Amino acid sequence: MSIAIDVVGGKWKMHLMWVLAEGPVRFGQIRRKLDGVSEKVLAENLRQMEAHGVVHRELYAEVPPRVEYSLTPLGEQLNQALQPLEVWGDANREALAPRLVESRPC
Amino acid sequence: MSIAIDVVGGKWKMHLMWVLAEGPVRFGQIRRKLDGVSEKVLAENLRQMEAHGVVHRELYAEVPPRVEYSLTPLGEQLNQALQPLEVWGDANREALAPRLVESRPC
Repeated sequence: MSIAIDVVGGKWKMHLMWVLAEGPVRFGQIRRKLDGVSEKVLAENLRQMEAHGVVHRELYAEVPPRVEYSLTPLGEQLNQALQPLEVWGDANREALAPRLVESRPC
Repeated sequence: MSIAIDVVGGKWKMHLMWVLAEGPVRFGQIRRKLDGVSEKVLAENLRQMEAHGVVHRELYAEVPPRVEYSLTPLGEQLNQALQPLEVWGDANREALAPRLVESRPC
């Protein structure tokens, strides 16, 4: 398990997988979807996921330059491997939702 | 996906799931397996997972008192849902391992 945790562990990476699974997105679009992430932390997370081979960064030589992030084939496999987790969360939504509210830090 | 991320997101919770899946464990045993976690952070994570209903805390009225943590049935289901992630990591171990070394922060 520890290898997978290195790749999707941390506060933001699973959120990022969820956003990237929808298709190529620009940095600003990702940032708007991840509530509360700083520019620096988002850039660092994307850089790490690129280094892990799950995210592809495509630079379009336009004016101004456009950069899009997407999942690589390895990232698509990872996304598939995360599906049962999503199914588990959805199946237990009613049981978990009130608890999630209760357990938020004061 | 966001509900599942609330439950296993963050730096330690997937590590914790992995340790707890092996059977009931005491606080000190968990701490020794999670390299670098502080007592306070581990206690807070276990408390949150208990609040989410995935971890059970059992107090044995011995002298000194003994406390053991284990997965609830909901936690066991979550553990099952995490298996494909482990399989993905193991299947791609060779591709990922060198990259994980490279991507560690300086």
